[in-house]
Amino acid sequence: MTKPGTIYGVGLGPGDPELISLKAARLIGSATHIAYFRKAGRRGQARQLADGLLPAHAVELPMDYPVTTEIALDDDAYAATLKVFYEQCVEQLLQHAVHGDDVVVLCEGDPFLYGSFMHLHRRLIGRVAVEVVPGITGMSGCWTASGTPITYGDDVLHVVPATLDEAQLCQAMQGADALVVMKLGRNLPKVRRALQTVGLAERAVYVEHGTMAQQQVIKLTDKRDDNAPYFSMILVHGQGRRP
Amino acid sequence: MTKPGTIYGVGLGPGDPELISLKAARLIGSATHIAYFRKAGRRGQARQLADGLLPAHAVELPMDYPVTTEIALDDDAYAATLKVFYEQCVEQLLQHAVHGDDVVVLCEGDPFLYGSFMHLHRRLIGRVAVEVVPGITGMSGCWTASGTPITYGDDVLHVVPATLDEAQLCQAMQGADALVVMKLGRNLPKVRRALQTVGLAERAVYVEHGTMAQQQVIKLTDKRDDNAPYFSMILVHGQGRRP
Ligand SMILES: C[S@@+](CC[C@H](N)C(=O)[O-])C[C@H]1O[C@@H](n2cnc3c(N)ncnc32)[C@H](O)[C@@H]1O
Ligand SMILES: C[S@@+](CC[C@H](N)C(=O)[O-])C[C@H]1O[C@@H](n2cnc3c(N)ncnc32)[C@H](O)[C@@H]1O
Repeated sequence: MTKPGTIYGVGLGPGDPELISLKAARLIGSATHIAYFRKAGRRGQARQLADGLLPAHAVELPMDYPVTTEIALDDDAYAATLKVFYEQCVEQLLQHAVHGDDVVVLCEGDPFLYGSFMHLHRRLIGRVAVEVVPGITGMSGCWTASGTPITYGDDVLHVVPATLDEAQLCQAMQGADALVVMKLGRNLPKVRRALQTVGLAERAVYVEHGTMAQQQVIKLTDKRDDNAPYFSMILVHGQGRRP
Repeated sequence: MTKPGTIYGVGLGPGDPELISLKAARLIGSATHIAYFRKAGRRGQARQLADGLLPAHAVELPMDYPVTTEIALDDDAYAATLKVFYEQCVEQLLQHAVHGDDVVVLCEGDPFLYGSFMHLHRRLIGRVAVEVVPGITGMSGCWTASGTPITYGDDVLHVVPATLDEAQLCQAMQGADALVVMKLGRNLPKVRRALQTVGLAERAVYVEHGTMAQQQVIKLTDKRDDNAPYFSMILVHGQGRRP
């Protein structure tokens, strides 16, 4: 019997190809099978980051999202569609593993912080060997891009997904000394209103494509339009103890 | 006139030497001057991580903390002592930069998340070129070690320093779907009480030396003693939306 392969969930960091870990570079550089999520028709940020590292002969297993922004997030149909999709992805990965092949699954940032990979991970666990390689998060990339530390001394940091509704956003911002709002995109107007309500709008910094070639860092009050791409977030820096 | 050097604040990741970024490895591998914090008499985790990468001829600039746990955190003398120490470190780094030398400052995890480097950073800015390289955080290393994603879907994550007092800890844990408590060490009994108060003790996971050789992951309820080393933290995993 063939020795089954291992599924690797590999964090690629925030976008700068030099911010990949030595371990991720080694695994990608010797990969025979590589899988990655992408929006149908697009190349995908994760796949692009692996470009300089991936052997030419590696078998590519793109996983095309069946939905992205077409269905509202709270729609039951959305969850049902994704469920079927993730199950299909898992079957595909298992098939390769059963034949003795390792598969490297490319993940943006760190796989275990709001990543799609975790929906595969919990279905794979117990059925095949899985190894996760942490990565530099998008938020680390963004606060580094902002030129200012996110937390000092005793600061409490809240990491908040912009997909919450406005009241929940306000609630989640309460008590934070420092704040990261992720999954911005078309949620920007709602997040802006919440920040104004809790009195943090003046301190907020908007970061787009942190550590990537098109990086942009501006005060939120200087961002006049509501067009935020997928790779964007808002930071409010802590102001804690500074000896 | 000599062209002044650059001070690099370089994140080294959570502890596994393979979790250093390609950029950090490149900068350390070509360093002429390397600086790092350490407890007097110890080698220092940051310095140790650079071991396999550092050129033999690199000039080493250890920065020995004048205090660690000898003075209570809220003591004015503590802040005053650290202030003088950081100012001396900055003068030393500036001297090298003025002579045209680049200095790589080694930082545990990510430099801008509760790191000592930020106390140098804000004093260096405007006086010399400074570049920060993000790293994989200790918390990413720890939740990867725990084998479970930290946040799903709409989960709100709170990152809380254990140096807060017990009432503040309880306050900071309120409203969190997922939780990371850092700077544990001798604060463990206080953190444990706070987790019990807010009803999270049963879900809490204790991680020691995440991604390092001595890594340990256990349920907090299985940790019978109160001996937590410097490199330890507590995680409470989110339970959010999972299609
Ligand atoms: C589904 S989450 C995945 C996060 C990823 N696992 C991580 O560790 O960063 C996607 C969100 O991460 C944020 N993000 C990730 N990388 C980013 C970058 N380089 N610049 C700005 N935002 C980024 C954006 O808010 C984006 O909507
Ligand atoms: C002063 S903070 C510095 C954090 C660092 N800048 C980072 O990004 O992880 C030190 C605390 O980080 C946590 N920590 C860092 N690395 C860790 C590891 N590998 N395992 C457990 N805890 C770690 C511990 O709670 C420790 O007390």
